[in-house]
Order: sequence, then structure tokens, then C-alpha cells
Amino acid sequence: MFDAKQLANEGVRNLQPYQAGKPIEELERELGIKDIVKLASNENPLGLSSKVRAALQDTLSGLARYPDANGFYLKSKLAKKFGLQTSQITLGNGSNDVLELVARTFVSAEHEVIFSQHAFVVYPLVTQAIGAKGIAVPAQDYGHDLDAMLAAITPKTRMIFVANPNNPTGTFLSTEALQDFIAKVPENVLVILDEAYSEYVAEADRAPSFAWVDSYPNLVVTRTFSKAYGLAGLRAGYAVSHPEVADLMNRARQPFNMNSLSLRAAEVALDDEDYLQQSVAVNAAGMEQLVAFCESANLPYIPSQGNFLTIEVGDGAADIYDKLLHEGVIVRPVAGYGLPRHLRVSIGMPEENEAFITAMRKLLD
Amino acid sequence: MFDAKQLANEGVRNLQPYQAGKPIEELERELGIKDIVKLASNENPLGLSSKVRAALQDTLSGLARYPDANGFYLKSKLAKKFGLQTSQITLGNGSNDVLELVARTFVSAEHEVIFSQHAFVVYPLVTQAIGAKGIAVPAQDYGHDLDAMLAAITPKTRMIFVANPNNPTGTFLSTEALQDFIAKVPENVLVILDEAYSEYVAEADRAPSFAWVDSYPNLVVTRTFSKAYGLAGLRAGYAVSHPEVADLMNRARQPFNMNSLSLRAAEVALDDEDYLQQSVAVNAAGMEQLVAFCESANLPYIPSQGNFLTIEVGDGAADIYDKLLHEGVIVRPVAGYGLPRHLRVSIGMPEENEAFITAMRKLLD
Repeated sequence: MFDAKQLANEGVRNLQPYQAGKPIEELERELGIKDIVKLASNENPLGLSSKVRAALQDTLSGLARYPDANGFYLKSKLAKKFGLQTSQITLGNGSNDVLELVARTFVSAEHEVIFSQHAFVVYPLVTQAIGAKGIAVPAQDYGHDLDAMLAAITPKTRMIFVANPNNPTGTFLSTEALQDFIAKVPENVLVILDEAYSEYVAEADRAPSFAWVDSYPNLVVTRTFSKAYGLAGLRAGYAVSHPEVADLMNRARQPFNMNSLSLRAAEVALDDEDYLQQSVAVNAAGMEQLVAFCESANLPYIPSQGNFLTIEVGDGAADIYDKLLHEGVIVRPVAGYGLPRHLRVSIGMPEENEAFITAMRKLLD
Repeated sequence: MFDAKQLANEGVRNLQPYQAGKPIEELERELGIKDIVKLASNENPLGLSSKVRAALQDTLSGLARYPDANGFYLKSKLAKKFGLQTSQITLGNGSNDVLELVARTFVSAEHEVIFSQHAFVVYPLVTQAIGAKGIAVPAQDYGHDLDAMLAAITPKTRMIFVANPNNPTGTFLSTEALQDFIAKVPENVLVILDEAYSEYVAEADRAPSFAWVDSYPNLVVTRTFSKAYGLAGLRAGYAVSHPEVADLMNRARQPFNMNSLSLRAAEVALDDEDYLQQSVAVNAAGMEQLVAFCESANLPYIPSQGNFLTIEVGDGAADIYDKLLHEGVIVRPVAGYGLPRHLRVSIGMPEENEAFITAMRKLLD
């Protein structure tokens, strides 16, 4: 008798697949409604940068060729912009890909991997897929409890994931707290600092994380083009690390993990300062708009440095999520993150945020 | 002392990264020459289908949104075209991604994985990355020796990779030989039938492999859009399997492994029969052209059912490869495949094939 489950690796067998935000088209198919506002996946509401769009059109004709497996131009551009060596950079099909890659390179079934409660779900997923043991350290005020994470290190610990800002809570760690933490982690434990939302943080508050890699060879910093750069649909992310760490990740990497269009789009997006500044400005204004609504409606929220706000709507969160769908507004339930009373709302354009606020006011009445 | 190598998983530590075909831009940078002909990566010389190109332009504006994690439209289209259930389909970032995914789902360090000598390098790479033991069964006339592969099965065998046609040799297994083999493999051993080059094979000779999945639940068939469909730069591939196998692979899959443009391009390419027929016709004509050259130049070659011809150029293969580069023609050395006297030449457009032939005649003189 063929039994696929019995043949599968134990970690994989017990995995629950990642639940993506509901796509607009799916809601259209299900409910037959139009004019849907999606504030569910922390995407950039500005849409694609016009500069990226123009560059992609020029690139279409070359698509029957394989991508450049080494990402020569994108790595060169990243190195120049951030003062890095290209040998420190690992490119990925979104930062999800580099997060998985670093785990598969360094973690095996006998290891433990530490992450925070309420942190990005990909950390426990990749840990479990490998068959390693995930240690979820209880959060403090919805954020990382770095002291408790240090205390959780054992001889079996191989990797610690730290998200800053964290998704789905938006909590943020100061440069001092973070550096103090990294300095205390033993060198044989890798620290993966996931900075997917870094560009939304005020420059003065951002940690000099790329420079830290020179002092802390066990530090790997990941970034993405899916948020402030507006390329979620193209899948582009990268890690900055010690060159030896990058070399090892490169061995486990699928040679064409980034496609030709995402390579090109990321190159152009890196230079498009106007778009980036507009992203940050739209986000700051939208954050004010959502926070003002929460205050006026007496809804508690978790102060956020990301492009989303996680709001405590109460016991009826699942019901409110569902009713919002029928109003044509998609937000994100976060019960799977241990936050059954909250909903995560991505910052949209002013009118999209207003659509959410209007629908919420209707439901709260 | 930080020692990245010592921290890496043993399988990964000893991996040699995949060597991609030399990109045209790289050769331009290195040698400063122009008008380069690349016949190195079994790409489609027709370039992108005009229908796909038009569809991609319409899709650009949505790229700040995440891709549909379930690939609803592409799976529906594949299911309809090939008479499948969508639950049997696993989408991948190229078929490389599904080949890796199936291995990571079912194979762990204690297992053995069987493949043929001279077969696609990704099979040993993914096996080694997991830390499993790869068994390379000696080839027969450069192709798979199916009896020897059956005989290599042990209680530790979890997976067998079969490429048909095989890359880089172009050898082909008959429907009868293949079915006889699959029927003899125990059900607790998965057979991964890689049909990346299937579309180039005459329809009458192709195995009804998708239908076989109903009879052999341990069979997984993989296909790609990188060859006859001309989408190598976009990364699109898929596996057809028992729904339970697909469900398990889906748990280990990165949720957004296929990006929005590759999903859309693959949908359109599936319908573009004209392009597909032109691909096959151009390939057949180019194959005749290269074979005629080999015959006239007394160069032995391995008869090929793919979009490439692997030619025995002799002891100086590495030197000839290098000299061809200086003539502006990129082909593929296959010493890494245990074929140090051969070069693999992808079929290009007539004038590209001619450029290779002209350069070779010059070198042979």
C-alpha cells in the first residue's frame, strides 16, 4: 500500500503550509464583489515604480535565456550602495528564500533554533521542515525578549532568528539592545537579523547592521525588495553576511533562484530614491490615519515601525475579518501567530485606509 | 574562532555549486567581444513568444502585490489541458525547484538516491545537500541502464531520478522500457521522471506519463517551461503526482516560489500552440544541420531527442571550448558530467548553428 505521508520526512509531514493573505481575485471569485481593498499582505500600495516598469519592458525580449546565475549586476549595485563586498551577498527569490537557505545550510535535525513568540511564521516553518527543534521564546509587550532569547541558548542551538521590525507586531529593537544581544551570542550560533521592514524606520533609529557583519561573523542580515521597494510580485531579497557564510549558502542555492526580471527590477529599484521616499511618506501618513482611527474608536493597537498596524479588535476578530471581506476589505487574521484577538492591517493609500475605517465603523456600530 | 564551514551541514559543506552556462554579458565583459552566439544552456532560440510578451506587459502594474500563492489559474489551465486534477500539480520556480522540493520532502540523511551516470547534475546536488547518499549507476551507451538501476535498489533507497530525454546526452527511453521499469520499482521508492525536454520528442514516441501517475502512485513527473515554451528567464516548472505527494510537497514549498509574471507567462505559453510548433520545427531543422556537420567532419555525436547535441570533439575539448569562446560562440563543456571529450551544443537559429559550424571548421583545420 502506497502511503505518501509515511514516506515523507517527519518535519515536512507535520507542517502546516504558510497561509498567504487572501488574493483579491480569490475574493472576487468567492463573493462576486468588485472594488476590493487588500490590506492583508504588507504590500506597497503605490504599485510598481514607473522606472522599474520601463526597465522591465526593455528586458522582456531576453526571457527565453536563463537568468544570470551569479546576479553580477545586482550584487555589484548592492555592494556599491551599501559599501559591501559582492562576496558578502546572497540573492534570493524573496527574503523567504534566503531565510530558508540559511537554515538548510547550517541547521540539521539535531539542532535547536530560537525565535520569538509572535514572530514571522517562516522561522518555525523552515525549522520544522528540516526536522530541527524550534524554541519559541515568550514575547515581552508583543516584541522580542532578547534576554530570554539569550537564556534559551543551549549547546544544541545553531541559529536565532530576530525580526526588526517584527512582523506581524511591528515592534522594534533599539540599536543598543540589538548590538548588546548580538555581542553576547556565542560565535557558533548564527544570528539571522531579518530587516524586511527596515526602510520604514527613521534613518537615525536604524542599526548599522551591514557594518556589524564585519565584527560579528555569525551575523546574517536579510532584506527584501517586497515592501518599500514595491516588488512583492517579482520575488527579490538578499542576505549580507561573512563571505564564508555566503559561499556556503551559495552552494545550497538553486542556481537560478532569482529570475531575469526580478534581478533587473531590483537593480533599478535600488536607484529609484523618489519612489522609496514616496513609499515611506505614504506609509507614515497612512500610519497616522489608522492610529487616529484606533484612538478615536478606543481600539488598542501595537505601536508599529512597519507598514502595517496590528489592532486588538477583541474576541470577535475572526468574525470581524469575515465581515470585512463581505465589505470588500481584506485584512489579515493573526490567530496563527498567537494573536486571536488582533487583526493586522497593512497601510494602503489614503482612500484604501479610509475604506477599512469606514467598514470598521459600520461593524462596530 | 568563527568557522563557517565547520558549522555548515556536511552535505552542503562539500557541495560544488552548479556551473551555469556562461552568460553572454559575462563573455562580453571578459573578452570585450560582441555578436556572441550562446549555444550553451539549451534555451529556446526563438526568444519570448509575442503572446507571452503582450500578456506580461498587462501584468506589470500588479507587481507590487504578492503572487497568488496557490497558482490558481495556472494549475486550472494545466489540469484542463492535460486532463489532471489541480490537486496533482505542484508549481515550481523552474523544474529545478520541484526536483529539489520532492527530494527535501521525502529524502533524509539515512536514505539512498539513485540516478544515472551522465544524468542531470541537479540530482546529485540535491541529494548531497540533504546529506543522503547518491548512487550513480553506470550508463549504457550514454543513457540510463534501467536494469542496473533496478538492481541498485536497496532497503535504504527512497528515490530514483530518471531523465527522459536525458540532459546532457539526449538519450531517450522507450515507453515500454520506461513503464516496465516503473512497474518493477517498489511502491516505497519514488520515481522522479524528469521530462524537461519532452516537447521535442515526436508525439507518438512520448510516454503517457501523466496518465501513469494514476496507476503508479510513487511516480512524480516533472516538466518545465524553460525549453520548448521559451521561458527560461522567468523560472516556471511543475510536477504531476499523486495528490497526497503533491500535498506533502506543498507543505515544504516556499509559498511564493513562482512569481506573478512567471505564473502569467506560463498560462499564456500553454495556449500558444503556434510558438510551440515553431520551437519544435526550428529544433528539428537545427538538429539536422548539426548532425550533418558532425557526419561531414567525422565527429562522433550522441543521437539526441533534446534541443542539443553532445559531440565528441576529443581530448582537446576544454581547449576547443575556450577557442570557441574567443570566436564568440558559447557551448557547454560536460567534463563535470564525466564526458571530458565531449561538448554539448544547444540548437540555435540556423545562423547561430552556422556560426558554431564555421568556428569549428576553422578550429579543426
